[in-house]
Amino acid sequence: MARNASLSGFPEWLPSERLVELHVLDTLRRTFELHGFSSMETRAVETVGQLLRKGEIDKEVYALSRLQDEDNGAAAKADPNQLALHFDLTVPFARYVVENAGYLAFPFRRYQIQKVWRGERPQEGRAREFTQADIDVVADGELPFRYDVELALVIVEALSALPIPAFKLRVNNRKLAEGFYRGIGLEDTAGVLRSIDKLEKIGTDAVAGLLKSELGATDEQAAAALALASIRTEDTSFVAQVRALGVTDELLEEGLGELEQVIAAASLRAPGSVVADLSIARGLDYYTGTVYETVLVGHEALGSICSGGRYDALASKGSRKFPGVGLSIGVTRLVSRILSQELATASRSVPTAVLVTLANDDSWIQAQDVAAALRSRGISAEVAAKADKFGKQIKYADRRGIPFVWFTDEDGAHQVKDIRSGEQVAADPAVWMPPSADLHPTITVAPN
Amino acid sequence: MARNASLSGFPEWLPSERLVELHVLDTLRRTFELHGFSSMETRAVETVGQLLRKGEIDKEVYALSRLQDEDNGAAAKADPNQLALHFDLTVPFARYVVENAGYLAFPFRRYQIQKVWRGERPQEGRAREFTQADIDVVADGELPFRYDVELALVIVEALSALPIPAFKLRVNNRKLAEGFYRGIGLEDTAGVLRSIDKLEKIGTDAVAGLLKSELGATDEQAAAALALASIRTEDTSFVAQVRALGVTDELLEEGLGELEQVIAAASLRAPGSVVADLSIARGLDYYTGTVYETVLVGHEALGSICSGGRYDALASKGSRKFPGVGLSIGVTRLVSRILSQELATASRSVPTAVLVTLANDDSWIQAQDVAAALRSRGISAEVAAKADKFGKQIKYADRRGIPFVWFTDEDGAHQVKDIRSGEQVAADPAVWMPPSADLHPTITVAPN
Repeated sequence: MARNASLSGFPEWLPSERLVELHVLDTLRRTFELHGFSSMETRAVETVGQLLRKGEIDKEVYALSRLQDEDNGAAAKADPNQLALHFDLTVPFARYVVENAGYLAFPFRRYQIQKVWRGERPQEGRAREFTQADIDVVADGELPFRYDVELALVIVEALSALPIPAFKLRVNNRKLAEGFYRGIGLEDTAGVLRSIDKLEKIGTDAVAGLLKSELGATDEQAAAALALASIRTEDTSFVAQVRALGVTDELLEEGLGELEQVIAAASLRAPGSVVADLSIARGLDYYTGTVYETVLVGHEALGSICSGGRYDALASKGSRKFPGVGLSIGVTRLVSRILSQELATASRSVPTAVLVTLANDDSWIQAQDVAAALRSRGISAEVAAKADKFGKQIKYADRRGIPFVWFTDEDGAHQVKDIRSGEQVAADPAVWMPPSADLHPTITVAPN
Repeated sequence: MARNASLSGFPEWLPSERLVELHVLDTLRRTFELHGFSSMETRAVETVGQLLRKGEIDKEVYALSRLQDEDNGAAAKADPNQLALHFDLTVPFARYVVENAGYLAFPFRRYQIQKVWRGERPQEGRAREFTQADIDVVADGELPFRYDVELALVIVEALSALPIPAFKLRVNNRKLAEGFYRGIGLEDTAGVLRSIDKLEKIGTDAVAGLLKSELGATDEQAAAALALASIRTEDTSFVAQVRALGVTDELLEEGLGELEQVIAAASLRAPGSVVADLSIARGLDYYTGTVYETVLVGHEALGSICSGGRYDALASKGSRKFPGVGLSIGVTRLVSRILSQELATASRSVPTAVLVTLANDDSWIQAQDVAAALRSRGISAEVAAKADKFGKQIKYADRRGIPFVWFTDEDGAHQVKDIRSGEQVAADPAVWMPPSADLHPTITVAPN
């Protein structure tokens, strides 16, 4: 079970917990690389000017100052060259693409797994330091819509490979929503989106109230906006349901066509995992088309564990535009939940498969030869540091969860013992292998 | 070739450069795990009180403050609960061990690969954000000296597996040096160490001057201290050379015995890579016995690429002591040098081995089936986003460095083409494999 962090909002894992996290990270990396995404990292800091480039930040940002500096911190904060820790990986990625455009082959596909920081009040599912795993495809000029479809399929494959419960990737399209609002005569489409975004938190009636009081919607307009937001289908039948609302608008048609493409492909290749959910708005302003978010079934209160969307205007260099589409997995949020609910556990907490014991203190160098022979075939091995009585050396292995101990007698004869079963057999360090389940720590998913 | 970072001291890599870094990180991880070290991470921040626990910090530290906070930054910096970015991984590790002692099995072996930050003036070999890879063994109570020997061997194995030039791990022992200084009547042994530490920078005469002016050494005492520091051997003959200086002291004898153990084992298992170098002092105060540092042969001006030592008093909890020994590899320093001197390069910049082309736009879903069949056998594959003319699709693969393109005709017959040789053959997506050299990007070491 996860302990409390000694600094609120900054989780740290025990070695056995870290193995679960590593399994998640390795699985994501492998999936992303199989789909042709290149690894990339950006520095942890951006200038405040860069972070504010897209307007006000709705995240709490940590600014940096040199401790030994005598400067007044408040003055430094007003400086756009002031350094601050990044709060997501999308803004740094956009900056990286613009800076390195001459060195990248477009469409550029990258994954980026790094920590991000937000000075928010910590709570369940929200940390101040956490790891995100992002994939994005960015083009120089035009990015075919098909990438919006592909990224949904890649992320479903990645999430399906993790030791987590069933999930639903909910997809919507800003064009569809904005076109619809425009079609019913609500021109402040961003305002409507902001209100609709509050549906899960405050409920239908309160949102209807907001639409009327803040955006001047009539009863009919509010009802139509809420009717749109209530549509949720696992197949492309949402198209007919939207059409049945009787609204016509060019942008609405474009959005309907796009969302239909995503859901049609997903219902073929990932049936049941992807739904059209016309209530999804996503707070961030830079999305311009497809938007995604993801809930774990039975853990809806945890919030979205994977979100993203299409952004056509996040990055530009003069008249050159770099449209993109991407998703971000909340690794720490997922791992915290896996650990706190024991959804998966590591078979042992150390990589070591074999402890090579010492018959006497002078045999340490020879024992290193045995360990080296095992390691050369991928078997993790440690050598005892002292020639304690064998019982004590075995106890050391047991305490650390090492499954096998190795003995070499004075004539150079070798034996290996499984300390769980007590079975002991003659063995050759150049040949012996542990059962494959014992070679590395494995991650076991708890039965439902 | 590495470009200049857009923010001085914060290097960022291009995708092909990142592959070299990933290769270094994966190699270190694999070596450390084969030797039974568990993965561990600590949060990026510590309290200033924690960072200052061992007295003054000789590193420039970045303090954090919430950008939206109205507080005066200067006032916050005086607060010991003020958060700051860690400047190494040893201090956070010591804090983690003390906090989690009840959950760890000792001796606790861990590796930790993370970024650290220092607000120093950037220069060749020194960045403000850089990655360190640390291994340490920490005991609860007593830590057998043998771990000082073992860690030298592990680190030699790890460094030997990297695409770097030959290196020398230089080892000394604080007990040896301090005992010797005491034995010749210089009681401020820390002061002598600080002066000796400047040998490479200011030379023998200047250090002799310092010893006399600042520490009141006589000509004979200064000469003896410098004679000790001039000893450098690849085998245990340093013991006789020290004894020939005619100094007797109990601590000196203990240090001689310890260093002899390290060099004796290293000259057997890693001949030529490890030297006894009695000039090595290491600035940090917490080392109490063995000290290590490492230079790349031919790149001595780069400074140490791997340093560490034994610390008997870094961590304690009441009367409980947690002595440790460890080393830290400067990953960013190494990778920067590898890239700037093109010591190693990646065979391609993308993970993708195969681009599955489209004969027409409707075949995208079937092309996904081909790609899925390849991926299920570990072959990284992308599907073209549009049914452009084949020439254009092949050009896309070529531009991104993807070696193979896949064609499926309307009858479902498959062919795969190596775009480097032009060779095209019939292939089955369930069976075909690329040559193993093309399966993943590989790292090639430049010939000397």
